[in-house]
Amino acid sequence: MTLLKLFVALGAFSAASHAMAWDYVLLDTHTPAKNWTITSEQLGVKTAKPFSVTLRTLHGGRQEGVSVVDIDNGAMKLSVVPTRGMNVLQASVGNVRMGWDSPVQEVVNPAFIELNGRGGLGWLEGFNELVTRCGYEWVGHPGMDNGELLTLHGRAANIPASTVTLHIDEKPPYAITLRGELKEQAFKKVDFSVATELVTEPGSASFTLNDTLTNNGDYPKEYQALYHSNFSTPFLEQGAKFAAPVKQVSPFNDKAKGDLADWQTYRAPTKDYDETVYNVVPYADAKGETLTVLHNKAGSLGVSVGFNTQQLPVFSLWKNTDTQGQGYVTGLEPGTSFSYNRRYQRPLNLVPTIAPKEHKQFQISYSLLADKGAVDNALKRVSEIQAGRETEVRQAPLVDLTQH
Amino acid sequence: MTLLKLFVALGAFSAASHAMAWDYVLLDTHTPAKNWTITSEQLGVKTAKPFSVTLRTLHGGRQEGVSVVDIDNGAMKLSVVPTRGMNVLQASVGNVRMGWDSPVQEVVNPAFIELNGRGGLGWLEGFNELVTRCGYEWVGHPGMDNGELLTLHGRAANIPASTVTLHIDEKPPYAITLRGELKEQAFKKVDFSVATELVTEPGSASFTLNDTLTNNGDYPKEYQALYHSNFSTPFLEQGAKFAAPVKQVSPFNDKAKGDLADWQTYRAPTKDYDETVYNVVPYADAKGETLTVLHNKAGSLGVSVGFNTQQLPVFSLWKNTDTQGQGYVTGLEPGTSFSYNRRYQRPLNLVPTIAPKEHKQFQISYSLLADKGAVDNALKRVSEIQAGRETEVRQAPLVDLTQH
Amino acid sequence: MTLLKLFVALGAFSAASHAMAWDYVLLDTHTPAKNWTITSEQLGVKTAKPFSVTLRTLHGGRQEGVSVVDIDNGAMKLSVVPTRGMNVLQASVGNVRMGWDSPVQEVVNPAFIELNGRGGLGWLEGFNELVTRCGYEWVGHPGMDNGELLTLHGRAANIPASTVTLHIDEKPPYAITLRGELKEQAFKKVDFSVATELVTEPGSASFTLNDTLTNNGDYPKEYQALYHSNFSTPFLEQGAKFAAPVKQVSPFNDKAKGDLADWQTYRAPTKDYDETVYNVVPYADAKGETLTVLHNKAGSLGVSVGFNTQQLPVFSLWKNTDTQGQGYVTGLEPGTSFSYNRRYQRPLNLVPTIAPKEHKQFQISYSLLADKGAVDNALKRVSEIQAGRETEVRQAPLVDLTQH
Repeated sequence: MTLLKLFVALGAFSAASHAMAWDYVLLDTHTPAKNWTITSEQLGVKTAKPFSVTLRTLHGGRQEGVSVVDIDNGAMKLSVVPTRGMNVLQASVGNVRMGWDSPVQEVVNPAFIELNGRGGLGWLEGFNELVTRCGYEWVGHPGMDNGELLTLHGRAANIPASTVTLHIDEKPPYAITLRGELKEQAFKKVDFSVATELVTEPGSASFTLNDTLTNNGDYPKEYQALYHSNFSTPFLEQGAKFAAPVKQVSPFNDKAKGDLADWQTYRAPTKDYDETVYNVVPYADAKGETLTVLHNKAGSLGVSVGFNTQQLPVFSLWKNTDTQGQGYVTGLEPGTSFSYNRRYQRPLNLVPTIAPKEHKQFQISYSLLADKGAVDNALKRVSEIQAGRETEVRQAPLVDLTQH
Repeated sequence: MTLLKLFVALGAFSAASHAMAWDYVLLDTHTPAKNWTITSEQLGVKTAKPFSVTLRTLHGGRQEGVSVVDIDNGAMKLSVVPTRGMNVLQASVGNVRMGWDSPVQEVVNPAFIELNGRGGLGWLEGFNELVTRCGYEWVGHPGMDNGELLTLHGRAANIPASTVTLHIDEKPPYAITLRGELKEQAFKKVDFSVATELVTEPGSASFTLNDTLTNNGDYPKEYQALYHSNFSTPFLEQGAKFAAPVKQVSPFNDKAKGDLADWQTYRAPTKDYDETVYNVVPYADAKGETLTVLHNKAGSLGVSVGFNTQQLPVFSLWKNTDTQGQGYVTGLEPGTSFSYNRRYQRPLNLVPTIAPKEHKQFQISYSLLADKGAVDNALKRVSEIQAGRETEVRQAPLVDLTQH
Repeated sequence: MTLLKLFVALGAFSAASHAMAWDYVLLDTHTPAKNWTITSEQLGVKTAKPFSVTLRTLHGGRQEGVSVVDIDNGAMKLSVVPTRGMNVLQASVGNVRMGWDSPVQEVVNPAFIELNGRGGLGWLEGFNELVTRCGYEWVGHPGMDNGELLTLHGRAANIPASTVTLHIDEKPPYAITLRGELKEQAFKKVDFSVATELVTEPGSASFTLNDTLTNNGDYPKEYQALYHSNFSTPFLEQGAKFAAPVKQVSPFNDKAKGDLADWQTYRAPTKDYDETVYNVVPYADAKGETLTVLHNKAGSLGVSVGFNTQQLPVFSLWKNTDTQGQGYVTGLEPGTSFSYNRRYQRPLNLVPTIAPKEHKQFQISYSLLADKGAVDNALKRVSEIQAGRETEVRQAPLVDLTQH
């Protein structure tokens, strides 16, 4: 039997076949991360293109001891970082890369980061992923709230996953599921766990995150989530466009007011531009599903980010069209909240509460739109969701940031 | 010769037989922690029940790389965490567990904790042990003192032990001694070392901590120590009792005033209770020995914590009888000091000084009281130490916490 | 061929012979640090005395996982710490040790240090090296600047090197070069890399640091560098002397005013002395080269520290002649800047700027002066550089530290 042989060959890894699937524990209390690979050939699976999953460990510098899981589904190559909140480091299809070039080149082990450093901006010393989980106790800019310094975008991205498992369906389409659990726990303060899941199918140019936040505590707790999804070239360029079904848009701050008229169009890399951010309240379909699209100027290449507004009701568009070296990047960021410090978001009703033992699900789908047809289809879907409903363009920020 | 064979078999571990004992270096500058076990059988020792000591390493999440030493003395199983200040994670006899269920489930590697986070409460992200060492530069609640933020309960619990050795007597009762050294050092600031020791005997339901703090510096230094010893069910329950020979008791703060009349009795898990703390000055016998007891309502099961008031003159009773999920737990905490920030304790004369090269010893004994007879004996000892002397019950806290 | 055999024997290490040299990758993204040694015998090199380079990993305490490279050039033994900014831990020739005895005994892994702890003095928990790199975003005492707490002496000493390579020339004098790269990166904040290099020759009692700071970013950035070079006995003793070609000297603060008259002479270990610091502007020769010397009272043993004032225009003399246990040590510290917080140094024009893609080189040479002849030669060189030019002795500190 194939599986038995695998089990023997894998050494430290336990493999078991349940419910028509292969399951591997890559990392757990008694299972150290080790270099390891499984391939469709080893599984005796025949897909159009072979797939594989690899676990490796990085060394040197501030990335010492960081685990990375590489998934090659035959069409798309994905890298996931268990040591950094199961963040998606990058994805690519052929030479088209989803992700960006941060000045932070290393995949930084959270052991070397002081989130409280740099006035609460320590998070910036590790920020370079395609998808960075923000939350779940809070998100947003650093600042005091309830007498405590909330550091930028919370802790999730700097929590190593405590259990990492790989699940491959034994039947077509042989879905590949990578799971990892984040524990966000502090006595008297918080008792969250986040069951993260990344799913992709062999041959697909898409992947989905499917996270479940649980409040294990006995008290209701405020929470916030934001999926910081970051793209650069070849999607981002002068004249690139953002599309979404928009109910309301507003500038994040005074600086963003200036470019409000062009908020859906991107600049070329622009010296001293820094960033502008727009707060978006999206429309959704009857089930709450919505879609956001980033595409190049020609409309021949793009990405879509889909989510459900019952889970993630708001969205931030982060336009960091500064120079290439500074980080030419845009963030498509579905969230429970905008990027203001938590204390500003309570009056906006954007600091939800999770009841004891309650679960909150967050599903976000990422797709490469590889040609004009795919882009047009996605834009059509955006238009269908908008369904002619009007967009409120607010001229002023929702929050008066000059007031403390 | 048994030992020679062991030496060969153990590989990295050096074993030597001196003064009628087996000695093993489990962790040192050139000895990485490795999975390892030694058993009474391997040693050729015949005890009523076999004993063993195991070293293992945890993986995944924020417990990556944490070393744990499990001692099974034949009657009691103990887990000690070298990576976290040689803290005692838990102890159990059969299905009776000493310890508690913290929302913090992982045994957190200090590399992932910012003690200065959460306004100095970062310590709470790792707090889940049966015995957590607090000190030795300071203990107490976070706050400014001498222009510096003192973080909750000092650094000891988050200092990895630098040398860990196991010593087993070659003669009955074959006492098992686990040692580890904590270095609390910062140029110009502090030069402490703490030689920690945990001793237990095969078949015993007790263990003793025997720590020696040394000021290696050339100047006298303030120091503080507090042994945060934490118990839950089956000892803690509605109607459970605390007993000690008490010279003086006072409420820690205004909140604790309300329950002062019942300070020695426990509540069931109580929603929104949070915690009350009582400051206790215990009586001791002529040698300074004293005993504190926690027992269940029926008086059929308990634990005792014994110490010497010449070493640890005061005691905090921490009653955290909140819900089970929040952490239903009581702390029996002998110390040089109460749990106030250090700046409040100087006027109380509870910030002692250690002279250059001076040693301070702290011995604390923990015993399971497995039946009514054992509980009664312990209570009798408490009564003998009290010896009819009166208890001063102060109605007001010793410290005005509203004043900064 | 020797090299091929080595390649096979070394396992994980890749060795290659280019341009008449042996090159070994000791640590890199896919190369974990492993215990390893190379000797001149293995290389088939015949020098007056054999040389060797060893890589080892420390365990236990806060030094868990720290890599150390020991270079024995046949005359001088050097220890370099890749995990701590490629700092030079110590050097010795026979029983003459360059370095000092800090209360910090461990070689502390930065993972266990909170630089923001102790009010920004967390750096002191790891400070014990012969040469500690300070910078490169800032140096100096902790304090607020531009709304951010700058921690003591910057991050460099606590950045693990991301790539460590060893290069040995295949031709006499068989120079041994150890390289490591430091990445000081944070999105939006800084994008520095520092290519560090330590060079020594078989049989030599000298070594040279040759660092190249690069601003990889697209914007000019402020930077600061300071090479904290620390010596104790047998050079430092009562009556030991410091010599340099001095253009200007001033006391760092009011305390240093008191000893200004004797600023070039050292005290015996002195209780309660703490430290005095003198700011020195050195003279240099036509090429910018200058030399500073520390020697014992008899003038029979010393060290010299040479640098170029076009790279490092100023110098701090740190006289920490407190007790042996507190750390009896003097720092010879060439830098771009003095040790004031950065906000004080801008008005002094000591916060230079590095342009985008610009490189800044810092070369510092350390030599043991093993006898009176060597000391006299060095003092003669100092005198030649001074060339009779006058020294301005300022009575007051350059900075009014009472003003914020």
